[in-house]
Amino acid sequence: MAKKKVALGLDIGGTTTTYGFVDAQGEILFEAQMQTRSKEHVTAYLPRLYKALDAAFAQVAEQAECIGIGIGAPNANYFRGTVENPPNLNWGGVVNLSELVYNQYQLPVAITNDANAAALGELKFGAARGMKNFILITLGTGLGSGIVVNGELVYGHSGFAGEMGHLIVNSNGRICGDGRRGCLEAYVSVTGIRRTVSKLLADSLAPSELRNVGQDDLSGERIAQAALNGDKIALEAFEYTGRILGQKLADTVLITSPEAVILFGGLANSKDLIFEPTLRHLERNLFGPFRGTVKLMISELQEKNAAVLGAAGLIWHEMEKKAVD
Amino acid sequence: MAKKKVALGLDIGGTTTTYGFVDAQGEILFEAQMQTRSKEHVTAYLPRLYKALDAAFAQVAEQAECIGIGIGAPNANYFRGTVENPPNLNWGGVVNLSELVYNQYQLPVAITNDANAAALGELKFGAARGMKNFILITLGTGLGSGIVVNGELVYGHSGFAGEMGHLIVNSNGRICGDGRRGCLEAYVSVTGIRRTVSKLLADSLAPSELRNVGQDDLSGERIAQAALNGDKIALEAFEYTGRILGQKLADTVLITSPEAVILFGGLANSKDLIFEPTLRHLERNLFGPFRGTVKLMISELQEKNAAVLGAAGLIWHEMEKKAVD
Repeated sequence: MAKKKVALGLDIGGTTTTYGFVDAQGEILFEAQMQTRSKEHVTAYLPRLYKALDAAFAQVAEQAECIGIGIGAPNANYFRGTVENPPNLNWGGVVNLSELVYNQYQLPVAITNDANAAALGELKFGAARGMKNFILITLGTGLGSGIVVNGELVYGHSGFAGEMGHLIVNSNGRICGDGRRGCLEAYVSVTGIRRTVSKLLADSLAPSELRNVGQDDLSGERIAQAALNGDKIALEAFEYTGRILGQKLADTVLITSPEAVILFGGLANSKDLIFEPTLRHLERNLFGPFRGTVKLMISELQEKNAAVLGAAGLIWHEMEKKAVD
Repeated sequence: MAKKKVALGLDIGGTTTTYGFVDAQGEILFEAQMQTRSKEHVTAYLPRLYKALDAAFAQVAEQAECIGIGIGAPNANYFRGTVENPPNLNWGGVVNLSELVYNQYQLPVAITNDANAAALGELKFGAARGMKNFILITLGTGLGSGIVVNGELVYGHSGFAGEMGHLIVNSNGRICGDGRRGCLEAYVSVTGIRRTVSKLLADSLAPSELRNVGQDDLSGERIAQAALNGDKIALEAFEYTGRILGQKLADTVLITSPEAVILFGGLANSKDLIFEPTLRHLERNLFGPFRGTVKLMISELQEKNAAVLGAAGLIWHEMEKKAVD
């Protein structure tokens, strides 16, 4: 019997590196994890990675043939194949990870950041199947985005296109991790809604179950639970977050006119608590001709598999483009 | 001798309809104009148009063969081939202009709005030759934009993508023609800078040669002339306009990461008066990885030919896509 064609998806996060083999239908044949060890230099990280991947290849060697390796990594540049000074990895400058991994395995390699990979995962295996124009937004510690136009991911001239987390909400607003003021991710992300809760707790005297929780312990789930309990501060925090996201989406829709905006991760799991105000403020702020043209959807990828499906989706997408060219 | 292949470019403005034949290198073989008569119904307009075009075809019939017709028109939808309720034409609802013109001439027809056509004119014949990712902005009565990603114009799911004139600068700001508040074109356009001059004349007691000019008579050229004379109000108006444009461009660059932003029309002709503050505020507001990646350029199309070159560029671009497919 012919071996099944699979792609290796590799997602490098600040804490965990996840890898697995994914076939063209999104079935995962094998998946495993190792610690990233963010303080380790890349020259120490790579031998550990190769050892882990070698073991993974051995696991599927009899049943599957690997067509290529897709990598999702922070500050990854698709054009250059590089990981460039990621703030959460001590890799020492610019690393041409694509070339290094290619030299190790002699397989086609493509790399992009995790939000772009998530968009391709959604396009190939998830909620965006068959769509030509959509935006994927990840709502985790920060806000990441991957934008698809005419069926292709938008990398732009610099290779860094699709950084919606740094859209400016208010140029006199909250300090963001990049040192600027008022970035969208300082408001719309798990970190952002946590800051909003703190602000509301400061401004208001309303009783709230969140007054007993330290800011660092305020997870998206905890705030969502309070909102479901009817806590006014928590409900207002979701309304505020959805309002800002809806307003900035209304601007973004003018640029690429997506069929759908798909929310993924941490805060997206709060479902209607975040979807209802976001959609309401999106529609309210949309320029007339765009009203009713945009769906707001939740990711169809399981969170535990999304990173590997995204990275695998990237290389599947590349191989299909090559087949057409 | 074989006849030269040309495209018919047709631009329908509120006042003037311009048409002409353009070869693949952007050489114009014939160009003429007729009045649009904005109060006329489309059923009266079209017979006049066909008569004018018939005469134009007759002019070039011996030397040229027409490969198709590109149309730039207000509120045009590329996908549907329609002109939909343009505010400045009394055409009565939704008109399938593509189909009507095709039935008349049996030639391939494509239609889009004038800013999108201008972007394709720039791509095929102007400052964007060879670029894969750029943004064209027209600064006339309003602010129009055409966005190119991966070498293709972005129409988006709705067909209306690229409406940067309606990005929100300030949700409590100036009333816009569409009834919303704080749209970019209420600040950045000939109309916008004129309003800014009025505001500055109200707020300040500084002497200004513009205090003798009625608001309706304040053309971009008049304000530019005052600025070149050292008029403080006029200089401040350009600074203010460039700041707002630069700030909103910094947001837009995060989405599609263009190689260049190309300014065209009325206000763009003020050259450094508008370019210098726009670029300064763009760079100042850009998210780190994008700094220094975007050129700010002036259109290379002559204003008098740009409408026909844009409309012809649209159909040339379509025919080349078909040749590849």
